[in-house]
Amino acid sequence: MGERKFRHIGTRAIRPDGLDKVTGRASYGADFSLPGMLHGAVLRSPHAHARIRSIDTRAAGTLSGVRAVITARDLPELSPDQMGGIEGHPVSYRDISDNCLAREKVLYHGHAVAAVAASSAEAARAALGAIRVEYEVLEPVLDMDRALEDGAPVLHGDRGSNVAAKIELDGGDLEGGYAQAEHVVEREFRTPMVHPGYIEPHACVVRVGEDGQIVIWCCTQGGFMVRQLCAIVCAIDPAKVKVIPSEIGGGFGGKTTLYLEPLAAVLARKTGRPVKMVMTREEVFRATGPASGSRIRVKVGIDGDGRITAADSDIYMEAGAYPGSPFGAAASCIFTPYRVPNFRLVAYDVVLNKPKAGAYRAPGAPTAAFAMESVLDELAERSGLDPIELRLRNAAGEGDRAPTGVKLCDLGMREVLEAARSHPHYSAPLGPHQGRGVACGYWMNAGMQSSANVTVHQDGTAVVAIGNPDIGGTRASMALIVAEELGVPYERVRSVVVDTDSIGFSDMTGGSRTTVATGHAVSIAARDIVDQLRARAARIWGVDPGEVRWEEGRALPPDGEHEPLTIDELSAQSGALGGPMLGNGSLSAQAAPAVGLHLCDVELDPETGVSKVVRYTAIQNAGKAIHPSYVEGQMQGGASQGIGWALNEEYIFDADGQMENPGFLDYRMPVASDLPMIDTVIVEVPSPYNPYGARGVGELPIVPPLAAVANALSHAAGTRFTELPLSPPRVLAAMEPRRT
Amino acid sequence: MGERKFRHIGTRAIRPDGLDKVTGRASYGADFSLPGMLHGAVLRSPHAHARIRSIDTRAAGTLSGVRAVITARDLPELSPDQMGGIEGHPVSYRDISDNCLAREKVLYHGHAVAAVAASSAEAARAALGAIRVEYEVLEPVLDMDRALEDGAPVLHGDRGSNVAAKIELDGGDLEGGYAQAEHVVEREFRTPMVHPGYIEPHACVVRVGEDGQIVIWCCTQGGFMVRQLCAIVCAIDPAKVKVIPSEIGGGFGGKTTLYLEPLAAVLARKTGRPVKMVMTREEVFRATGPASGSRIRVKVGIDGDGRITAADSDIYMEAGAYPGSPFGAAASCIFTPYRVPNFRLVAYDVVLNKPKAGAYRAPGAPTAAFAMESVLDELAERSGLDPIELRLRNAAGEGDRAPTGVKLCDLGMREVLEAARSHPHYSAPLGPHQGRGVACGYWMNAGMQSSANVTVHQDGTAVVAIGNPDIGGTRASMALIVAEELGVPYERVRSVVVDTDSIGFSDMTGGSRTTVATGHAVSIAARDIVDQLRARAARIWGVDPGEVRWEEGRALPPDGEHEPLTIDELSAQSGALGGPMLGNGSLSAQAAPAVGLHLCDVELDPETGVSKVVRYTAIQNAGKAIHPSYVEGQMQGGASQGIGWALNEEYIFDADGQMENPGFLDYRMPVASDLPMIDTVIVEVPSPYNPYGARGVGELPIVPPLAAVANALSHAAGTRFTELPLSPPRVLAAMEPRRT
Repeated sequence: MGERKFRHIGTRAIRPDGLDKVTGRASYGADFSLPGMLHGAVLRSPHAHARIRSIDTRAAGTLSGVRAVITARDLPELSPDQMGGIEGHPVSYRDISDNCLAREKVLYHGHAVAAVAASSAEAARAALGAIRVEYEVLEPVLDMDRALEDGAPVLHGDRGSNVAAKIELDGGDLEGGYAQAEHVVEREFRTPMVHPGYIEPHACVVRVGEDGQIVIWCCTQGGFMVRQLCAIVCAIDPAKVKVIPSEIGGGFGGKTTLYLEPLAAVLARKTGRPVKMVMTREEVFRATGPASGSRIRVKVGIDGDGRITAADSDIYMEAGAYPGSPFGAAASCIFTPYRVPNFRLVAYDVVLNKPKAGAYRAPGAPTAAFAMESVLDELAERSGLDPIELRLRNAAGEGDRAPTGVKLCDLGMREVLEAARSHPHYSAPLGPHQGRGVACGYWMNAGMQSSANVTVHQDGTAVVAIGNPDIGGTRASMALIVAEELGVPYERVRSVVVDTDSIGFSDMTGGSRTTVATGHAVSIAARDIVDQLRARAARIWGVDPGEVRWEEGRALPPDGEHEPLTIDELSAQSGALGGPMLGNGSLSAQAAPAVGLHLCDVELDPETGVSKVVRYTAIQNAGKAIHPSYVEGQMQGGASQGIGWALNEEYIFDADGQMENPGFLDYRMPVASDLPMIDTVIVEVPSPYNPYGARGVGELPIVPPLAAVANALSHAAGTRFTELPLSPPRVLAAMEPRRT
Repeated sequence: MGERKFRHIGTRAIRPDGLDKVTGRASYGADFSLPGMLHGAVLRSPHAHARIRSIDTRAAGTLSGVRAVITARDLPELSPDQMGGIEGHPVSYRDISDNCLAREKVLYHGHAVAAVAASSAEAARAALGAIRVEYEVLEPVLDMDRALEDGAPVLHGDRGSNVAAKIELDGGDLEGGYAQAEHVVEREFRTPMVHPGYIEPHACVVRVGEDGQIVIWCCTQGGFMVRQLCAIVCAIDPAKVKVIPSEIGGGFGGKTTLYLEPLAAVLARKTGRPVKMVMTREEVFRATGPASGSRIRVKVGIDGDGRITAADSDIYMEAGAYPGSPFGAAASCIFTPYRVPNFRLVAYDVVLNKPKAGAYRAPGAPTAAFAMESVLDELAERSGLDPIELRLRNAAGEGDRAPTGVKLCDLGMREVLEAARSHPHYSAPLGPHQGRGVACGYWMNAGMQSSANVTVHQDGTAVVAIGNPDIGGTRASMALIVAEELGVPYERVRSVVVDTDSIGFSDMTGGSRTTVATGHAVSIAARDIVDQLRARAARIWGVDPGEVRWEEGRALPPDGEHEPLTIDELSAQSGALGGPMLGNGSLSAQAAPAVGLHLCDVELDPETGVSKVVRYTAIQNAGKAIHPSYVEGQMQGGASQGIGWALNEEYIFDADGQMENPGFLDYRMPVASDLPMIDTVIVEVPSPYNPYGARGVGELPIVPPLAAVANALSHAAGTRFTELPLSPPRVLAAMEPRRT
């Protein structure tokens, strides 16, 4: 594997979507229109928790320009046992439907209760004010502690408790393990809800044919996901739904579910006209999925050699209004990069009156790592061990078992840790009021199903078509893989994302699976083409196809009697050689996990509590970087988001559960001037499951920063931080005891 | 073949595109728009023949709303030896370019000389008047006789003559053959240019990305044709062109070339904005391809038994402004349904100052059959033989050779002729002033290249994706084929036409090839899926895939130990069984010819010359009718168009070469009230080359009507007609000698 020389894979080829994006020509979700189209708007709850007594849409329905008003009664009522989702991550279709349009109760401020389609966006918004909703306001449950209290209001009466689910994992002898420990640290960590903050708000256009065929143009991470879920929520045959994914202006996991699509579909069906819906930024904040807030207790013991003897954790994750926080993923990740012989993990999925949490880059892992890596940092301090050395002594690897029981392949932990230790950053001197933090991260990555078609046209150019919206450079990577397998220039390969009618099923772009799994499908499809090219050359030469080699875009004959045949020559004759060359590939892919380590230097102004990241290095095992610039971009982007999460981002709710900062001015994401250059080091310990050794890279880089920043700031401030964000007031308050 | 029982093929399944079409919801070429789109308009020549001295676009370019003005100087100058096209039908790319925008000369009234893009269609049209073109007006060549005269103006100076090409075919001993003949008839026939008259005018929207990627939405019979030709005419890499074919409102061959697309592409590139162009009906008539006018001399001799001893013909076809009439196809078809032991054929491609002729349903064959079948009718009269009996005695069949040398498969001539003879229509009594005509037709049909993808989703539904725009029921036929092969209900198959990036190369929808060739590709793709289903069932059962049978949508185990597995059950497990199921198929198909016979009863009003078709029966060998309703629709549509061609349709030019009837009020196509019910009889003598025995059916039905109507009218009028259309003035004039 490591010995295969690549000609295209690993190069920094020009991004095929770059020019259109930087010149503003690319078509995003809101850039599509149809003749005769109506515009939709959503009426949202002004209460965080209330029972809906009645909705009167009559007055709104008579307003000028208004064509239809819908409520949850226009959606089929799904049964609570209609479940879907993937292995270990069940989702309730009823919850998805109720989150799209509240049926009996509103469960958060901003929860959709009705939708209008009108001849203009203005008319639609104006009509919202004419919809009369009678609410019975209930006490909102706004924090985890209250949610778990006996006697707290219960969001979902039929479920009996605000704990929607709980998992427990244990192994070894926990008490015995702690008994062997020389140092034990136990702390509880808290993090608030944060939002992925993708630039592009959710948007869609839906057209319903007279025969019930539905076409959906939308920005999504998964056309087939929209197809499947929308069919269920609207009670139609999924075969009648076609989804055309637009260019996507950021997803980070936030575009892996439905919000507007079923509303637009029902409005389109009612009116017989296409319906367009576009969220405002405020709607994105109030009513789409933030990352879960968390309360995580971690206890770890190490022996005199710095080896972990035992660890346990209670993980509480905020699901928001409906079950589905990444509590399972948090439990899967928290201890896995280390050998923990004796452990216990209990994780809880807790509902409360906030927006339904959504996926956000490595869901569950950043807050888990914040807790674990902070504790390890403190153990390093206590034991006097270098924090990287401590991690090296405990690094898990091939053959070890994760707490879930999964047997690990080589994670590359050792190579990543060694790369960090020898990096100049790690030994660089620190200035006054500066602190350095180290933290590792682990993400299991997803495999799942992918499909690809590769076609070679008569001029020898190739097209690769996939069903995965391109978020992080998929088109470039797929073209590189085809160029590699066919042995043709990268510029001769065109890479496209197609609609759900034009390709086989493809799981979402997410889980850091696309380059790995869809790339694997593309590889199979391209090799299928190579076999056809070899067979055609063999036919021309009258030899056995097995004797024909394919190298550098040419078929080489087994003997000296024939001249090699190029792909251009063979393609030009396709009419005479059996017709067009089509290749396809599909698979259920297996993924190898990713690990990384981030180094962070923070400078603290002790007078104001303002901290600034002054140096940052991200080191990550990419397995094999198919397109290194995109890998670095993912590392830099993940680190930037993680720094924002660590330092400033948070959902701030008032006492009634209304978000007080639903805009980019008040919700403080880092901008370019807030950050130093994020340096990157790509380590390549190949995945045993991918033809090129590639591992998912997109999610891992958001896992270490929370802890890396907090550890750095703890060292700079001389006090341990356990709650995010580390905004100036909180830092100042934590330092207060020392200053007075 | 004939013994295979079909469950879906041959049924009259509901048309998947029907509801959207009849309710006006289907999106045709002009129904697409993009944000920021400009509108284009074309300045057309007011002269039929002129040299362009200069074009001054400056004033137009400064008008309000005008963004760009282009002339041929904005297109690359192609060399005359850049040729393309398919086997035996070369096309000059330079001619296509010059027809899109005239460079040195205008060659017909309506020839495009410049194009404007402006912020509205009105502003674009208004700007045309401000473009100053200086012409040197030349004598127009407006009829075939003048075109062939020595000293006539030559349209293309570098070619030396108005005869662009000539082919000669002969065999046997012509003079010897005539010497054996008892009856010889020789006549010359003339037909004017006619237009296919599709309801939807040409329309497109073109968007050019900053990286030069071009996306074309247009109504066309071939997305890959547009991709290829537009790339050549605009001098860009075809790999950078993506064509998204819209729903098509009729083509009949008329949408098999370029008119607006390169203009819109160049305007879009110049302005950086999407550009939409839509023709008016007048532009469609004046500047898109009519069927060639013709002058055809035919001489046939038969012996005392009614067997043809010799035949010869001179075929002159009007190419219009640029070479490319179907003179070759006319020569290929004219004698082929009959055994002609001694023959000679000479065919000429003649240019003259009329719109460049285009393909129109069985190009070349209807006028050829008009000549041949009229002569045979006269020979039947002279010899006293029944006209069907005469044709039976001469019918060609398996093993016979066409004049082109091609060896024929069984055409089904005998079965078609017998079906006609035994049809009640043939023996029904005629009323006063009524006449009955019989005529056969032959069309070789095209095979060419096709591609198809078939995918089975997790719910067991299938999608079949093809690259052929659906003109005559392709989607229904492809779904029937997939339903047949997979053994699933027709309703569980979704059939879609996709863009050129989403499918392998596919030759145009035309030549009556699509159901046959693309259907064959679909059949291969569906069988590929069946093999995968069998392999997956085998894996579950632990048996050899070869032992698993696939019947009625289920895998049947080799033994009694297992329960059959349905496609739904197997599809639901695709994640565990290797991923999504993708099937593909492609081929260079071989086509079997089609033959048919039409019976026509005409009633003539001897006072006015008005004739009315009072009964009409079309009989045709469809090989195997995949969807009989569509086959009947093709037969009825072709007959209707042929009746219009026979009776009323013609391009009428004034002395300067300006078409005088460029609208549906003056260009007299038959409407529903002009026609009786067209009765149909489908004969099924299978094609040996298609898995279901299907033959192309779309073009053949326009071949017999010209002669069938003329023969009927000749019998009603008591005089032989040799020139079309048989409009009242012409009929009256022909009868004049008898009336006085």
